[in-house]
Amino acid sequence: MVKFVAGLSRESIIDVQGLVSVPSVPIKGTTQQVEVQVRKLHCISKAMPTLPLTSRMQQEAGEQLVRVNQDTRLNYRVLDMRTPANQGIFYIQHEVGSIFRKFLESEGFEEIHTPKLIAGTSEGGSAVFKLDYKGQSACLAQSPQLHKQMAICGDKERVFEVGPVFRAEDSYTHRHLCEFVGLDVEMEIKKHYSEVMDIVDRLFVRVFNHLNEKCKKELDAVRRQYPFEPLKYLRKTLRLRFEEGVQMLKDAGVEIDPYGDLNTESERKLGQLVLEKYGTEFYILHRYPLAVRPFYTMPCYDDTKYSNSFDVFIRELLEERAKACGIDVNTITTYIDSFRYGAPPHGGFGVGLERVVMLFCGLNNIRKTSLFPRDPLRLAP
Amino acid sequence: MVKFVAGLSRESIIDVQGLVSVPSVPIKGTTQQVEVQVRKLHCISKAMPTLPLTSRMQQEAGEQLVRVNQDTRLNYRVLDMRTPANQGIFYIQHEVGSIFRKFLESEGFEEIHTPKLIAGTSEGGSAVFKLDYKGQSACLAQSPQLHKQMAICGDKERVFEVGPVFRAEDSYTHRHLCEFVGLDVEMEIKKHYSEVMDIVDRLFVRVFNHLNEKCKKELDAVRRQYPFEPLKYLRKTLRLRFEEGVQMLKDAGVEIDPYGDLNTESERKLGQLVLEKYGTEFYILHRYPLAVRPFYTMPCYDDTKYSNSFDVFIRELLEERAKACGIDVNTITTYIDSFRYGAPPHGGFGVGLERVVMLFCGLNNIRKTSLFPRDPLRLAP
Repeated sequence: MVKFVAGLSRESIIDVQGLVSVPSVPIKGTTQQVEVQVRKLHCISKAMPTLPLTSRMQQEAGEQLVRVNQDTRLNYRVLDMRTPANQGIFYIQHEVGSIFRKFLESEGFEEIHTPKLIAGTSEGGSAVFKLDYKGQSACLAQSPQLHKQMAICGDKERVFEVGPVFRAEDSYTHRHLCEFVGLDVEMEIKKHYSEVMDIVDRLFVRVFNHLNEKCKKELDAVRRQYPFEPLKYLRKTLRLRFEEGVQMLKDAGVEIDPYGDLNTESERKLGQLVLEKYGTEFYILHRYPLAVRPFYTMPCYDDTKYSNSFDVFIRELLEERAKACGIDVNTITTYIDSFRYGAPPHGGFGVGLERVVMLFCGLNNIRKTSLFPRDPLRLAP
Repeated sequence: MVKFVAGLSRESIIDVQGLVSVPSVPIKGTTQQVEVQVRKLHCISKAMPTLPLTSRMQQEAGEQLVRVNQDTRLNYRVLDMRTPANQGIFYIQHEVGSIFRKFLESEGFEEIHTPKLIAGTSEGGSAVFKLDYKGQSACLAQSPQLHKQMAICGDKERVFEVGPVFRAEDSYTHRHLCEFVGLDVEMEIKKHYSEVMDIVDRLFVRVFNHLNEKCKKELDAVRRQYPFEPLKYLRKTLRLRFEEGVQMLKDAGVEIDPYGDLNTESERKLGQLVLEKYGTEFYILHRYPLAVRPFYTMPCYDDTKYSNSFDVFIRELLEERAKACGIDVNTITTYIDSFRYGAPPHGGFGVGLERVVMLFCGLNNIRKTSLFPRDPLRLAP
């Protein structure tokens, strides 16, 4: 039997029958303090003698030695997944989705499923994947934005969706994917768009708390391979008005247009200033200048140069923008018509699941948090 | 104020300030026993004076009078959604998804997200939507079948997915959509593929029990517009071997090939026979002839004419097929390679969310259970 076992390749799957016993001499170097005296052993799936990469190699290598680079890992994703760090990352991803849903359900939100095949473009602007739909030209939804608002117009008071989002962007950055999982929320507003920020605040604090409390083992596994500092956040999320942010930047000597958008550099700088002043890497920036927000964004009641909208920042920008009270014209008639049938004031937000996990775990590449990532160069496995 | 109110169109949205009081004479014809003495009234969203359809019209009409046909309803889905029946249907849909997840989480399953943009065809056979992916030819996944198996090969012991599935079929039937929400499950098998059937059994019984207990109000609302009989099912789901089913059909005088597939007619007949004999409209038919199952289906250990596979029937066929132990060759190399790295025995199943809701509620058209359905003729709203 020993000879047979010695001949088995690494990563083969075996059935073992044996006697579990506590050895007289304590076992060093493992946490297990029992051993199995094997009686029968049967190989049920034999792995190739030489594997393209092994989980052991990856663990030893970590990121530092770059013995297994990102592309190789992704080419053999099934093997790559077998590292404790990746088992941890995808368990954490599962938990983020799970807490997202549970929190929203407990707040009276209902899950909806909106079509990914649509006739128009969902948000205009960035590139879309086009296809032929039974002779009609169609595209893949870049977000459920319009359909989730239509669900609100259909008397669903609070809705959310967890589903794929498609962006045909030629982005080769560490934080862009051509397909990712959107976590989307839309809700009626009773009095003020701050109600939407209340949900964002409590939702994310709940997610962060849960991960820190319930996913210790997984976070440790990730940290061993990819060291990171725990995310700093407050019990009650900081809400910064855009004007205040501009002032903080000005005070720090950064020249900035008060009615323009923030560029990546000034966002980074603001994040740094906020961390120094308020001790948090997670905050909401709101009352953005109206001119830099999408068409469906509502102007502020008291000052139409600003808008009822906000961004959520985790370590760096969580790029999905949030908005409130969308009423404006565009080319999508069924969407516009929805507002003609009597529409309640509403607002919402959307974030990418992969990005939340990446930022929380301080990972350097979003491809690490997508099981089978899609980018301009990758359509497999 | 009365004049202003009288001038408001139906379905407009108003803010009201007033005094809630109990009237001296009990109110007849409503369940509410309080009234609001309006002090202030403000219209926040005025609906068009004449709407294409109103929820009142639909309720009165129901299906019988066909005053509002299915296509018209779907063209104005936002208004159509406002009926109590539709509010009920989509709440039930939410609950099915929610219980599906909660049950699987409690059984140690982890949620995964697999790509919808893929290079090959996901299951071959039926038509796929093709598109150009940065110069490569790609298609939309017809199921997460291969990727969920790869996740198992990546050491995730039990996984599930809730996500869109795309079929470019030219089906104009009451039960086909070009895009629907797949509820997919895949798991390692310790000893026998009946472990997968155990999960199916307990999962569906849990879903049915939950709907009957917790969604009474919603089911009543659906029933008022679309009368239906409650689904008959057993506490412990009936499992019928394919051979037994064939025998039952033969005894009833139906000619049938014991190693062929069942056609729709013989499936209906068998359903009827099962209902008469066992008193259930929900059952599992297993050990299908190997010849009629997909390539990834495992032959039976004791008789290779049969396979470790099953179908789930709710009233009529729940078309998504279940299978166990998929090991075979095909053209998709990364998938095949996954099995070369050591693969645990595994099995799984997939069902369509819209179809589960349709069958449970005895609805006559799957378009009633999809918020914004997509079929060969419909790409909007």
